[in-house]
Amino acid sequence: MRTSYAIGIDVGGTRIAAGLVDRKGRMLKEARAFTPAAAGPFAIVDAIISLIEEVSVGAHPSEIAGIGVGLPAQIDFLKQTVEFCTNLPLAGVDMRSLIMSRVKHSVTIDNDGNCAGIGESRFGAAKGVRDFVMITLGTGVGGALFLDGAPYRGSRGLGGELGHMVVQLDGPPCPCGGNGHIESYLGRPAIAARGRAAAGEFRGQAIRDEAGGDANAVTAEDVIKAALKGDEIARDILLDAGGVLGEALVGIVNLLNPKLVVVGGGIGESCGFLVERAAEVINDHALAGRRDVRVVQAELGNDAGVLGAAALAFDEHDSREGLHR
Amino acid sequence: MRTSYAIGIDVGGTRIAAGLVDRKGRMLKEARAFTPAAAGPFAIVDAIISLIEEVSVGAHPSEIAGIGVGLPAQIDFLKQTVEFCTNLPLAGVDMRSLIMSRVKHSVTIDNDGNCAGIGESRFGAAKGVRDFVMITLGTGVGGALFLDGAPYRGSRGLGGELGHMVVQLDGPPCPCGGNGHIESYLGRPAIAARGRAAAGEFRGQAIRDEAGGDANAVTAEDVIKAALKGDEIARDILLDAGGVLGEALVGIVNLLNPKLVVVGGGIGESCGFLVERAAEVINDHALAGRRDVRVVQAELGNDAGVLGAAALAFDEHDSREGLHR
Repeated sequence: MRTSYAIGIDVGGTRIAAGLVDRKGRMLKEARAFTPAAAGPFAIVDAIISLIEEVSVGAHPSEIAGIGVGLPAQIDFLKQTVEFCTNLPLAGVDMRSLIMSRVKHSVTIDNDGNCAGIGESRFGAAKGVRDFVMITLGTGVGGALFLDGAPYRGSRGLGGELGHMVVQLDGPPCPCGGNGHIESYLGRPAIAARGRAAAGEFRGQAIRDEAGGDANAVTAEDVIKAALKGDEIARDILLDAGGVLGEALVGIVNLLNPKLVVVGGGIGESCGFLVERAAEVINDHALAGRRDVRVVQAELGNDAGVLGAAALAFDEHDSREGLHR
Repeated sequence: MRTSYAIGIDVGGTRIAAGLVDRKGRMLKEARAFTPAAAGPFAIVDAIISLIEEVSVGAHPSEIAGIGVGLPAQIDFLKQTVEFCTNLPLAGVDMRSLIMSRVKHSVTIDNDGNCAGIGESRFGAAKGVRDFVMITLGTGVGGALFLDGAPYRGSRGLGGELGHMVVQLDGPPCPCGGNGHIESYLGRPAIAARGRAAAGEFRGQAIRDEAGGDANAVTAEDVIKAALKGDEIARDILLDAGGVLGEALVGIVNLLNPKLVVVGGGIGESCGFLVERAAEVINDHALAGRRDVRVVQAELGNDAGVLGAAALAFDEHDSREGLHR
């Protein structure tokens, strides 16, 4: 049976978003809640169930294809298990069964980066593109790979960690324990640290102002705000980061020869000039024949995760039913 | 019709190897010739045709599934065209048609790195593994990706260039024009340069001896020979290179989550301790859940390219005939 709606859930470290989505990617209803991280996994499941009930009011259960859930965790997709989870107490928790036991629908879980990639692939910047790389620049740096028209998850479903590739062997420490990884240059903490250093000097006044005059309080968002208002110091910090992103993407483009790179996450979506800088570097330094790769900003913003999780639920439903898109 | 043999051709910058191969990967006949690089593409085709005639003597044409040709070039696999070729004058030359017009068999061309990967996948170190990465350490650093059981070639068939990923933004120049790429640390010229520097000092005597006492004449092979005889200085150079390889592979393992990494090429095959060093670094630094990746040396040595090209010819034949392995 051809169902009309799917429910997408995007679980973040601080917030959970849910949506009732139709097959064209329209969000018909949406709801949000804080993630009760400290209260443990059952509280998180309770919050998800409440959101599912909230967005499905009015839709007949038989019209709903299923529920997709994106988690900020490393998921073994085939086994549908949560292998590792840094920011929430979900490692080893059978999230799929816990949710499915309380709803009438089938549930599929996936990594949040993959969900955002599926969202951009179905409804956003990567529509119709078979081979693309998505990189998300937020507090952490993550992403997703789409190869031959489908998410590529690796041998254990743990692939797509774009943030943890070395770009400088003797570079600054990365939260994962490594050194000089992409995330060490492009995660919010790295950009905030450079902002604080600049704000501590005379020339960093515009950045300092964004943080209410306190150089030690500067965040990545303050640097971005100052840059978008025209401050050259802030802009240089972000252009440097864009240059590192470009060099890192040169390697990924040489390795995978994608048709498109989508840059998402809060930083990627708000800093067009950072993305353009990365595109210039790729155009200058990638091997011949790969330079025609397009580099664009993500289009779905915060909705990518919910829309992608819903698309995943549609896909799982349709493949169970033997339907093809 | 189920054919018994395929012909594999491995075109290198200095030598062309050919073999008559059966479906179990046994090389029944083989032949080699120098690559007439300076004489132009038609001379290269002539040399290939001679080798094909040499190895197919005695086999009935109807028993031969086809001919696979590995070229040291960037190939658009779907279009079967040579896009770029650094060391031979083959860019834009329709090698497939030129060969096919002079033989009775169907011809398939592919990148030499992919052929070596297909060889290891079918008959060597990666037998039965669906998701693996092959990296070849020779004069250049190349490789191949096997994802979901098949070679992954990227959107234009140009993927798998493992040597040109940055590991040090301000690192030494790479032949491709970039800086601090894997090849800048692990290609023969990089290892030879470190060998020459060491050989110019007192402590580098063992390396100097391998080059007949001339520090300026030291090659990568001299460094390897000294190391295998127990010289600590030479060994340290190669262990350093192994450490860089490990850090680079951490990124690739985090990105692709392969089950296996196969290290081939002349340097990879002769330096087990370099490969072990890389494996240790991966085990220490890869993200959780990915550390169980096995890192092994290639098994087929110089034959990988010929055997893989033959396997490619079998595959193309069988898929044309609707047969499945």
